[in-house]
Amino acid sequence: MQDSWLEQVHFDAQGLIPAIAQDAETGKILMVAWMNAEALQQTLQRQQAVYWSRSRQRLWHKGEESGHVQEVKEIRLDCDADVIMLQVHQVGGIACHTGRESCFYQRLNVVDGQPEWQSVEPVIKDPKQIYK
Amino acid sequence: MQDSWLEQVHFDAQGLIPAIAQDAETGKILMVAWMNAEALQQTLQRQQAVYWSRSRQRLWHKGEESGHVQEVKEIRLDCDADVIMLQVHQVGGIACHTGRESCFYQRLNVVDGQPEWQSVEPVIKDPKQIYK
Repeated sequence: MQDSWLEQVHFDAQGLIPAIAQDAETGKILMVAWMNAEALQQTLQRQQAVYWSRSRQRLWHKGEESGHVQEVKEIRLDCDADVIMLQVHQVGGIACHTGRESCFYQRLNVVDGQPEWQSVEPVIKDPKQIYK
Repeated sequence: MQDSWLEQVHFDAQGLIPAIAQDAETGKILMVAWMNAEALQQTLQRQQAVYWSRSRQRLWHKGEESGHVQEVKEIRLDCDADVIMLQVHQVGGIACHTGRESCFYQRLNVVDGQPEWQSVEPVIKDPKQIYK
């Protein structure tokens, strides 16, 4: 019964579960990525966020290139056991590959009666400086 | 080009996108559900959260039975345009069908070296009293 905690998690048909990272200090929602069972186990062991990269089809230790790792303070599961939520400390203050604090920087604003997505969060660091 | 804002949203192969509801006042992550294009349009029009219920295969105006609607303050989209985030005022203070404020009430705690999911948020209202 070593892994009974893992068996309670409902991975989808692809063996994946969405994971939200929330800044533990500010409450800001930083990003959403995906985990498989191995990623979730490694996240627990390392106490740093490890995701499954769907585009690269491999484990992705967040910050492995940029140094912007996510130190995990809490791991939560929702009522249906099909979404993970991490409370994290975001090293470097930047979660998004665009150089912004959060990936959720596009807000739906209605301009002259027409909805449009507008970028409302500043770029903190040039992405070219993040990924050298 | 009336719906260009909608065409920028990346729905998955099933025509769905995950949507996070965050309490606009407290920053608490309340729940994650799914939207199709119609649900997202209705959410914008009503300024109340409308999701797509995968189990019932129909639009789900959150709170339609319980009265616990979510008044939408902001609609956000992430960098990959494949996750929606709503800033909401949760009427009644309860988002979860279990009678809790948030669906993310299970925390992974390590007890005697063994990880286990423990419920760490109180039931505010008996679910039997929510759905009469």
